[in-house]
Amino acid sequence: MEDVEVVVDDIEKKGEEPNERSEWVLNAPEPPSPWHVFVGSVSNTISQYQEKAYGLRSQSGPKLVLSFLQAIFPVLDWGRNYTAISFRNDLLAGLTVASLCIPQGIGYATLARLDPEYGLYTSALPPLIYAMMGSSREVAIGPVAVVSLLLSSMVQKLTDPSTDPLGYTKLVLTATLFAGIFQAAFGLLRLGFLLEFLSHAAIVGFTAGAAIVIGLQQLKGLFGFQRFTNETDVVSVTISVRQSLDHPWNYSNLVLGCSFLIFMLACRFLSKRNRKLFWLPAISSLASVILSTLAVFVTRADKHGVQIVKHVKAGLNPSSVHQLQLNSPYIAEVAKIGLVAAVISLTESVSVGRSFASLRGYHLDGNKEMVSIGFMNIIGSFTSSYVATGSFSRTAVNVAAGCETAGSNIVMAITVVISLLCFTKLLYFTPMAILASIILSALPGLIDFNEAYRIWKLDKLDFLACAGAFFGALFSSVETGLLVAVAISFTNIIMMSIRPGTEALGRLPETDLFCDAHQYPMAVKTAGVLIIRIKSALLCFANANFVRQRIMKWIAHEEEEANENEGVITKRIIQLVIIDASNLMNIDTSGISSLEELHKSLVSHGKQLAIANPRWEVIHKLKSANFVKTIGGRVFLTVAEAVGCKQDRV
Amino acid sequence: MEDVEVVVDDIEKKGEEPNERSEWVLNAPEPPSPWHVFVGSVSNTISQYQEKAYGLRSQSGPKLVLSFLQAIFPVLDWGRNYTAISFRNDLLAGLTVASLCIPQGIGYATLARLDPEYGLYTSALPPLIYAMMGSSREVAIGPVAVVSLLLSSMVQKLTDPSTDPLGYTKLVLTATLFAGIFQAAFGLLRLGFLLEFLSHAAIVGFTAGAAIVIGLQQLKGLFGFQRFTNETDVVSVTISVRQSLDHPWNYSNLVLGCSFLIFMLACRFLSKRNRKLFWLPAISSLASVILSTLAVFVTRADKHGVQIVKHVKAGLNPSSVHQLQLNSPYIAEVAKIGLVAAVISLTESVSVGRSFASLRGYHLDGNKEMVSIGFMNIIGSFTSSYVATGSFSRTAVNVAAGCETAGSNIVMAITVVISLLCFTKLLYFTPMAILASIILSALPGLIDFNEAYRIWKLDKLDFLACAGAFFGALFSSVETGLLVAVAISFTNIIMMSIRPGTEALGRLPETDLFCDAHQYPMAVKTAGVLIIRIKSALLCFANANFVRQRIMKWIAHEEEEANENEGVITKRIIQLVIIDASNLMNIDTSGISSLEELHKSLVSHGKQLAIANPRWEVIHKLKSANFVKTIGGRVFLTVAEAVGCKQDRV
Repeated sequence: MEDVEVVVDDIEKKGEEPNERSEWVLNAPEPPSPWHVFVGSVSNTISQYQEKAYGLRSQSGPKLVLSFLQAIFPVLDWGRNYTAISFRNDLLAGLTVASLCIPQGIGYATLARLDPEYGLYTSALPPLIYAMMGSSREVAIGPVAVVSLLLSSMVQKLTDPSTDPLGYTKLVLTATLFAGIFQAAFGLLRLGFLLEFLSHAAIVGFTAGAAIVIGLQQLKGLFGFQRFTNETDVVSVTISVRQSLDHPWNYSNLVLGCSFLIFMLACRFLSKRNRKLFWLPAISSLASVILSTLAVFVTRADKHGVQIVKHVKAGLNPSSVHQLQLNSPYIAEVAKIGLVAAVISLTESVSVGRSFASLRGYHLDGNKEMVSIGFMNIIGSFTSSYVATGSFSRTAVNVAAGCETAGSNIVMAITVVISLLCFTKLLYFTPMAILASIILSALPGLIDFNEAYRIWKLDKLDFLACAGAFFGALFSSVETGLLVAVAISFTNIIMMSIRPGTEALGRLPETDLFCDAHQYPMAVKTAGVLIIRIKSALLCFANANFVRQRIMKWIAHEEEEANENEGVITKRIIQLVIIDASNLMNIDTSGISSLEELHKSLVSHGKQLAIANPRWEVIHKLKSANFVKTIGGRVFLTVAEAVGCKQDRV
Repeated sequence: MEDVEVVVDDIEKKGEEPNERSEWVLNAPEPPSPWHVFVGSVSNTISQYQEKAYGLRSQSGPKLVLSFLQAIFPVLDWGRNYTAISFRNDLLAGLTVASLCIPQGIGYATLARLDPEYGLYTSALPPLIYAMMGSSREVAIGPVAVVSLLLSSMVQKLTDPSTDPLGYTKLVLTATLFAGIFQAAFGLLRLGFLLEFLSHAAIVGFTAGAAIVIGLQQLKGLFGFQRFTNETDVVSVTISVRQSLDHPWNYSNLVLGCSFLIFMLACRFLSKRNRKLFWLPAISSLASVILSTLAVFVTRADKHGVQIVKHVKAGLNPSSVHQLQLNSPYIAEVAKIGLVAAVISLTESVSVGRSFASLRGYHLDGNKEMVSIGFMNIIGSFTSSYVATGSFSRTAVNVAAGCETAGSNIVMAITVVISLLCFTKLLYFTPMAILASIILSALPGLIDFNEAYRIWKLDKLDFLACAGAFFGALFSSVETGLLVAVAISFTNIIMMSIRPGTEALGRLPETDLFCDAHQYPMAVKTAGVLIIRIKSALLCFANANFVRQRIMKWIAHEEEEANENEGVITKRIIQLVIIDASNLMNIDTSGISSLEELHKSLVSHGKQLAIANPRWEVIHKLKSANFVKTIGGRVFLTVAEAVGCKQDRV
């Protein structure tokens, strides 16, 4: 009983102070209502725009216009300080990335089941627009594998590209328009936080699953199959591969593709070992294309069964405004596809941009990035480009090649434009197997085992979301993998709210601190008092009843345990139950009802209830519900004071 | 700077203790993993069953069998102590409730668009089964308005009862079977907590909306319209009423119905004023039926346009096992309807049972109740009864009439059985308008203005869920109202997790306590130190980035404010940022990443980061991620110690 005595002495010494402190608790000013919080948040957003406008307003005429334009087109800012050295670095980086992204672009367009030139269009104009509007200095823009797969798997459910390629292309471009609109809207309305609904663990799993699906789809190009399933799940693809293998097939595609694949994988491996060889993967893919095209041209292997790209339409991006189908019966579906593509592409690009920005020590405004990517895709949809975004692998090459500004994107775009104007004929004899192997060589970068292992070590439930996304993408479809990931992540949050744990607190020796008796085994329980803390920030409808039952069970458990421990037939009865409310951020009507029920049960068993350290909203609501009067004013600032009251007021 | 000096002195006095306490924090034992928690929860459930089995095992042979049977059929328990006085009370109560529930039963069956006798069947057998298996002593079983409406509005979308009444009835009975199965499953698997997904505020709003919809549907019977819309939303019903009013209609129905409605409402009002007149509402409805039937019989008003019930099939509940449609193409839809009906009926019955049990001072096992109601409905579906449950109004009459045990249900059931055998012919001339007015007279009890006002006063967001459920049920459909309610409630929980507030802490004068500076205006900020607490139990993917940005903004805000307050051009720079982690129950990989990013940003600006009072799971994960090393071991048990370290370690 020593601890209790010590506390009582302290309280006696401090005289009136416990009551004074309880008055502090009970007389706190009224907290802001949810309406005020909402209005505050909206006006906060508006005032951010106003601040920028105010900053601009202090300038006059032409300077004002210039500042305004600079805010929208950062190129006017960094363009003024552009040096020859910067240009040289950007030139090198741009050329390096271009050599990678020309074959990748054609491959990804095929993955998206569009004509090959669309991959080049998407690598030509969008990077130029991004270079003018974007804030990241490292991100390299172009089509990406996962988004291409997503578009093909979702749009082909509406229109089959093999029977109606024109209609399919129109829907993809319309989806791109919607994606751009959603992205710009997210940025302008500062809704960037919605992207965080996709947890990092879920993205890791989803990307890995999508990578395997993409890899399996490349088997068509690698083996040179004529017919292949449209489905994207592992089971269908495996069955389709087996069926196709039964028919006579030409192994020359496979030989060609595999040999260059091994070559490219070896180059990637070497470049990882030696940082100076960063240019190797890019050059290796370009070299593979050139060598294999030459080989097919010289041997006319296309007459011996090797599938080739054939005609790639020359010339710059044609206008595609007339192709956008806003009256289609599928408009709602297409808008949905646009939304999913917007979210996926933004997630990758913004996270890539942010991580490189923090490496290089500057701050990247996520919302502004979203606006620039959104406009890029909107204009892209007018110019025959489909969804473009920043990809991690391309950006890594860009950075390793020494880019300094977004000018590298300009260089890359111009290179692609030159290719479109002059070199498309050279791609006639490029084997499809090579495009397949280029895509396949990029896939290991998407499957991050180390990260998955780190997630497993740190947080098993996070890993569950990761695994769910992976298997969903693998065995069902890419969108399903995403939905599974989001669902698991949110179920996680909800389950933690609904079935919160409770912990009993004990006093740490020689202190006034009360802590979880399991976390701090040296904590000592106080006789006759049960101090409970609920491990949740909310006491709401979803957990109120559960918490009440848990507390009653704790009491019964404590009293039983006391009986067993002491061999004597003296019961250790709990006289005072203190709820440490330091965690509780908020309480709703169900929570208040369950506290009232708990108090009734306790009183009927001759016990008292006290509340310690309630937060602002909680004490306000408890006062409004007259609960403070109901428990006889037993509200304290600290648990120590609440323990002390047992002696005084029982 | 006085506060900081005082703390430093204290720490110097206590010597090594700060380090020792930090060791307590850092060397806590490993917390249980989620798998262990899950396994523990499952074995907890199993052990509860084992305890009961063990309690039984200590008995021998026949006693064991008896105890086992008593657990399943509580009637064997209270039946043994049944006295004559109990019988008298139950008899009175049962007769009182029966006089109310015979007309109500016919009316609710009509609301459910079944033949009238089904209402009597549902009041005949299910109460008998409940009396044998149920644990509540007050609950009165029978059909209820809201569930009847729910069934009719959902099943009529599958089969139109006006064109195919037999098929419709079969689907309703099959839905009842599913409802019973779900209810029993919830109880056996102890999933009762799932019911709490419907917050009390949502139920209040939903019930009020459903009551208005039910009232509007009674206009058909009250006015005697021939044709009426099947839709349940306010707009369709209003349009239908106006259209029907354009056609010639007979006002005798309206006169009859309204006069008795006024009579019954007056009786209800009187009984609320004077508690001794509890029997008035029940008798008034029976009297209305008898008087109006006589009136129609004598005047043969049915030939003058008064709609009458006509033939009510005599005889006991026929077996309906052959009517259950398990091979129907609608089986999935019917199962879904069964689930919704199960949840709604359980919610009402269990909450009614619990509130009366706590009033009368005994504990009601919610899961056991669910099992008994589930079996009741399963057997009911075999015997031509549709979903029956306990209703608040009927139970209130039961209690006011003095029931002592579930035997009142037996008396009520036997009364209904006698009516079915002997009195159905007497119902031939009962006007439909009377049934409509009986239902209408019960509706004011479902619309609880006081409760809605109390919710508005206590918690505006709860009220939003209430209003959403109300308008959803009113303007769309009953199921929509429910979905809206659940969605709003959960969005509430998720939004609180995603955009948590942050608060800056200050020291309370003359203490070592640090509290929210807004809640306690007397709190004093410490120079050079910013103490932040995140108002959320989780730092996870959904809020990690947001929290990090908020903290950076706080720092900028504090440094700016210092500049403005002091007229002198001395900057008050924050040197130490302390995160008070007392709220944080858990952190995931995204949370850890954002803490690492925060630390990098702070270090690049020459600031330090410290963590105070981390919880069990949090400190464990921070150690696993090597974050503790990253911040130089600055982990403290209390904020006061963390503040003290500024002097020592800067």
